Amino acid sequence: MSKYSFKYDFSEGAHPRIIEALTRSNMEQQGGYGTDDYSQQAKELIRKKINNANADIYFVSGGTQANLIVISAVLHTFEAVISPKTGHIYQHEAGAIEATGHRIETVEKADGKLTPTDIEQILEAYFPPHTIQPKMVYLTHATELGTIYSKAELQAIWELCQQKDLYLFIDGARLGAALCSEESDLTLSELSAMCDVFYIGGTKNGALLGEAIVINNDKLKVGFESHIKMRGGLMAKGRLLGIQFVELFRDGLFFDLARHANRMAQKIKNALISQNIPLHSESPTNQLFVIMPNKLIEKLYEKYEFYTFFKYDENSSVTRLVTSWATDEKVVEEFIEDLIKWARVS
Amino acid sequence: MSKYSFKYDFSEGAHPRIIEALTRSNMEQQGGYGTDDYSQQAKELIRKKINNANADIYFVSGGTQANLIVISAVLHTFEAVISPKTGHIYQHEAGAIEATGHRIETVEKADGKLTPTDIEQILEAYFPPHTIQPKMVYLTHATELGTIYSKAELQAIWELCQQKDLYLFIDGARLGAALCSEESDLTLSELSAMCDVFYIGGTKNGALLGEAIVINNDKLKVGFESHIKMRGGLMAKGRLLGIQFVELFRDGLFFDLARHANRMAQKIKNALISQNIPLHSESPTNQLFVIMPNKLIEKLYEKYEFYTFFKYDENSSVTRLVTSWATDEKVVEEFIEDLIKWARVS
Amino acid sequence: MSKYSFKYDFSEGAHPRIIEALTRSNMEQQGGYGTDDYSQQAKELIRKKINNANADIYFVSGGTQANLIVISAVLHTFEAVISPKTGHIYQHEAGAIEATGHRIETVEKADGKLTPTDIEQILEAYFPPHTIQPKMVYLTHATELGTIYSKAELQAIWELCQQKDLYLFIDGARLGAALCSEESDLTLSELSAMCDVFYIGGTKNGALLGEAIVINNDKLKVGFESHIKMRGGLMAKGRLLGIQFVELFRDGLFFDLARHANRMAQKIKNALISQNIPLHSESPTNQLFVIMPNKLIEKLYEKYEFYTFFKYDENSSVTRLVTSWATDEKVVEEFIEDLIKWARVS
Amino acid sequence: MSKYSFKYDFSEGAHPRIIEALTRSNMEQQGGYGTDDYSQQAKELIRKKINNANADIYFVSGGTQANLIVISAVLHTFEAVISPKTGHIYQHEAGAIEATGHRIETVEKADGKLTPTDIEQILEAYFPPHTIQPKMVYLTHATELGTIYSKAELQAIWELCQQKDLYLFIDGARLGAALCSEESDLTLSELSAMCDVFYIGGTKNGALLGEAIVINNDKLKVGFESHIKMRGGLMAKGRLLGIQFVELFRDGLFFDLARHANRMAQKIKNALISQNIPLHSESPTNQLFVIMPNKLIEKLYEKYEFYTFFKYDENSSVTRLVTSWATDEKVVEEFIEDLIKWARVS
Repeated sequence: MSKYSFKYDFSEGAHPRIIEALTRSNMEQQGGYGTDDYSQQAKELIRKKINNANADIYFVSGGTQANLIVISAVLHTFEAVISPKTGHIYQHEAGAIEATGHRIETVEKADGKLTPTDIEQILEAYFPPHTIQPKMVYLTHATELGTIYSKAELQAIWELCQQKDLYLFIDGARLGAALCSEESDLTLSELSAMCDVFYIGGTKNGALLGEAIVINNDKLKVGFESHIKMRGGLMAKGRLLGIQFVELFRDGLFFDLARHANRMAQKIKNALISQNIPLHSESPTNQLFVIMPNKLIEKLYEKYEFYTFFKYDENSSVTRLVTSWATDEKVVEEFIEDLIKWARVS
Repeated sequence: MSKYSFKYDFSEGAHPRIIEALTRSNMEQQGGYGTDDYSQQAKELIRKKINNANADIYFVSGGTQANLIVISAVLHTFEAVISPKTGHIYQHEAGAIEATGHRIETVEKADGKLTPTDIEQILEAYFPPHTIQPKMVYLTHATELGTIYSKAELQAIWELCQQKDLYLFIDGARLGAALCSEESDLTLSELSAMCDVFYIGGTKNGALLGEAIVINNDKLKVGFESHIKMRGGLMAKGRLLGIQFVELFRDGLFFDLARHANRMAQKIKNALISQNIPLHSESPTNQLFVIMPNKLIEKLYEKYEFYTFFKYDENSSVTRLVTSWATDEKVVEEFIEDLIKWARVS
Repeated sequence: MSKYSFKYDFSEGAHPRIIEALTRSNMEQQGGYGTDDYSQQAKELIRKKINNANADIYFVSGGTQANLIVISAVLHTFEAVISPKTGHIYQHEAGAIEATGHRIETVEKADGKLTPTDIEQILEAYFPPHTIQPKMVYLTHATELGTIYSKAELQAIWELCQQKDLYLFIDGARLGAALCSEESDLTLSELSAMCDVFYIGGTKNGALLGEAIVINNDKLKVGFESHIKMRGGLMAKGRLLGIQFVELFRDGLFFDLARHANRMAQKIKNALISQNIPLHSESPTNQLFVIMPNKLIEKLYEKYEFYTFFKYDENSSVTRLVTSWATDEKVVEEFIEDLIKWARVS
Repeated sequence: MSKYSFKYDFSEGAHPRIIEALTRSNMEQQGGYGTDDYSQQAKELIRKKINNANADIYFVSGGTQANLIVISAVLHTFEAVISPKTGHIYQHEAGAIEATGHRIETVEKADGKLTPTDIEQILEAYFPPHTIQPKMVYLTHATELGTIYSKAELQAIWELCQQKDLYLFIDGARLGAALCSEESDLTLSELSAMCDVFYIGGTKNGALLGEAIVINNDKLKVGFESHIKMRGGLMAKGRLLGIQFVELFRDGLFFDLARHANRMAQKIKNALISQNIPLHSESPTNQLFVIMPNKLIEKLYEKYEFYTFFKYDENSSVTRLVTSWATDEKVVEEFIEDLIKWARVS
């Protein structure tokens, strides 16, 4: 690959400290299926960070796996999950949730964020036994459009969920980016206190693979490990996940990596604004959705890779630029120069 | 862990060459979801080894995942899979197959191996529309008891499957050990030519994680990647799997590692025989099932870890000793000395 | 029940001729599970009416059962069905389709009718392996809003389905009303020739229970009866269904009953129009969706039962009036008088 | 059909009183989906008979439907149901239970009856998270071999279930025959008090169709009607089921019919014993499993229909003779004469 890629936040391997930790521990004998010392240590580190000594924590290999395990473990067969239509479970998981027997009740949201009103509207349409009972609220933080929830917004959803006896599940595939955004007023422990279950994404924030599912609600803990096994998510060498999360959480590495990713994106964002290139969503995180002239896209494609999502109008399209823990600041600066140069021309 | 473990063939990390390859490639940008260069290269290497340029190959993270994806992708809803009762899908996958909607039709087999007669008996009981149609044969090679199929045995099953319009699926979680056993008369390419789909296990033969699913039958290729995604098995950083399989197959590493594991087990087996300690199954691979006096088990537990599976009689139990690519020959020799010493005493 | 009900088209038992046929045949011994003479005879009658001697026909007890059996039998696990959002499978079947593992991809349609454009838009969004493959088009005829497809409209959808390799499934829970509408230009055999599979609704057109599933596409016939059994739809006394469909199809009873239901509804519709009471949908069949002043609803509720579906504005609501084969014309005339009287007052 | 059939207990329609009740009530308007007056009345009658005013009762169309709805509603995804291998859910429901995601853990039992020891053996093999959690015990009464449980036998299972936190579900497709057997020491209310959920079979005891599911355990009541709807079991004209169960339970009709069926079978049984024709199982109910000389079978087939299940030895086979509420005593006497005549000859 000779072009520099802004397609994903998982184009590189893992943060070097993770590779070093894997190398260092490699020949130790450890217990299988998550009984290894590292997994225990990583769970303790996370329990401290979220300020909940009773949380049950499990590591699985990816986001779709985390979502399908949590949702199918928590819901009973006749229950549905509420999600924005942009939600990853609805848009990019190939029907994984329905394959476990559950409907996703969707709401169209331009910014990818649910509100209490959205949830209430779905609840009002519930007409048993002819319709499905909505029983869980699913939201992503940061969303698939790069947006984030404020503390007040999350609080309002959480209160409604408790009042209406709904479970709240937060998909944190990009939780680092969300919490470390300059616009965020939420800490990890505050977020953890406002949901029944969530996960902390490693794959998109410096790990080779791995998401940490955190279960706060006692009712949801029963038999959860059996669900992981039944869905093919119980890794024989669980150490691979444990070692990585120890590295990410034994000091602030997880947050440092997210901060870097955000800073790179916001640097590009400022350049876009300066050039009057409009944004498709107001993202304060590491994904930018940009309405670019097609001619500019064509020029940028000579040196860079990124997704063009859909046509905006005759002359422009919506593109996505993603930065990560590994994004090279020098390349970002070069990209900005190119952007300025070609924006004028196109 | 101060005791040496013979519990698993996945107690250590990965073979050092794999760790080196991960380190070396770490900061390269690569495509996501298995589009990376390494995955392509690994697929080509495997296609050559199996002598089938048209095989579709996919890498997933573990054995249960491979099994549930293959079986649910291949079977239609009203179809069942035939397996020995000892089969991994029946014994150790927490109902993963049934959770996708399929019954496992089982046959009691002392040696863990299916025969054409077993399959025919199940077919005879088929009474539509009141019973389920058996449509796939599942076998493990090596089996969960360490036994292996001969070329003639596999050939007979394969012919029956073709005659009866059944798919043949071989679970190769321990395929290396099976093929590299001194008693094996099968090569990888011969085995591949006698089934519709199989997988090559990496997790239990030197990889951090990873199984390579090989689809030979064209009918089974349609939409397979969607199934992987839908079951949560499509890894974002597919490179992690690709790099490992390149390393295992670019020269003979995969086979070397299996040979070492087998050699260590057979060394122990010879010592057991010399001490008249009986074996529970005739395993020529890296898992030994041993009928040990309880007093001997107690002594060995002071220095070693291994599973005691079940009570054999008042004074003895069936234990499992597993060796791997990483098993230290010096420890094996020490273990044998201890065995001889304590076998006499107990 | 002292009030007259316009809530359903299944408020009464069965047409008296059906009860007589059940009585007459009652003590005959017949084969079980649909092997009885009546079921065979009914299938032959339907095959003649649809002009397809090769159709496979099965009788099941109800509409939700028919829908879930057909859809789960036809689709493979990673495939989805396209439906208007008003579709019965989406609105009133408690997640039955998702419970079998399939997503319903919905399109918002004010009149409850799909168009080729709707289908194409969903196909365009297909992005494997990250999204689900749409593989079936589901439409209801008459729709849940009482509307019907013209021959040209159905033809256009059928052609697109063939071109795009999609199965077309028509839910005919109210097929009689649709085909016998004065606005219909479609016959039963024409409709049958323009879909892969459909069903003829008995429950809402004079039977005690029963829907006849008709499979035209050979590919969909394999193992279908096993699916019926597996989903709990294979009735031990299949004669109960056979006898009823013989009675409905041995002369024109099925169509006569639908015609009566339509005529009763259209009589009410004309009265509504004469009183300037607006309709919510343009139904030429036996269901009327009416925007009524709340005061009028209140008055009518003193003597009649019907559903008030939702608030239209401050002073009026959308109600549903349903007529059937059993609707008493005298009561309809009385209802119209009351309507005229109270419409003026309110 | 000129031959008399002993194939099923559902060869005829319904008991004439049921047909009369359907005729009588036919043109009444009634609420849909089980809200009709008859269903309410039938539920009250059953609640009185079982002596449990708090039981939730639902009517569905058949046995496989009842089984799949109860089991999938009660069990959570990772849980299994224990059954004798002869159980209807394992032998004759085409994988209906597995299609809802659950394994059936089976035990080989010559007489079709589970014991506490069988259950305990399955519980001992539970090894989470690698195996499935058994959570329900399923038994049939009468069994598929015609045998029945004594009060003490059921009591012992019920106590174990409570102690081990297992749900007990009794499939009563032939409950009438079991309770009315001369060997039975159980009443309906005693049986009801010793399980969490059971159903009373109508289809095989004089109804056109219909099983009454009785839920005693409060925990199992939540959302149950949604499950019925979701599985396609909520009948629009629920009156059809209500009317029949009113008729069966408003006086002793249900029990009278079962008694007749049993008496007819036992009459045949005595004749078989007198002729030294051995029985395959000790059935005191309306199904006889008989080891008949093949020559005798051949002769009987000239005048009668019944199932030959499987080869017993070179010269004889196991047949099944089933009687019902409708079995004509004169034909039974004729059958016995023929049996005696031909038994001597063959």
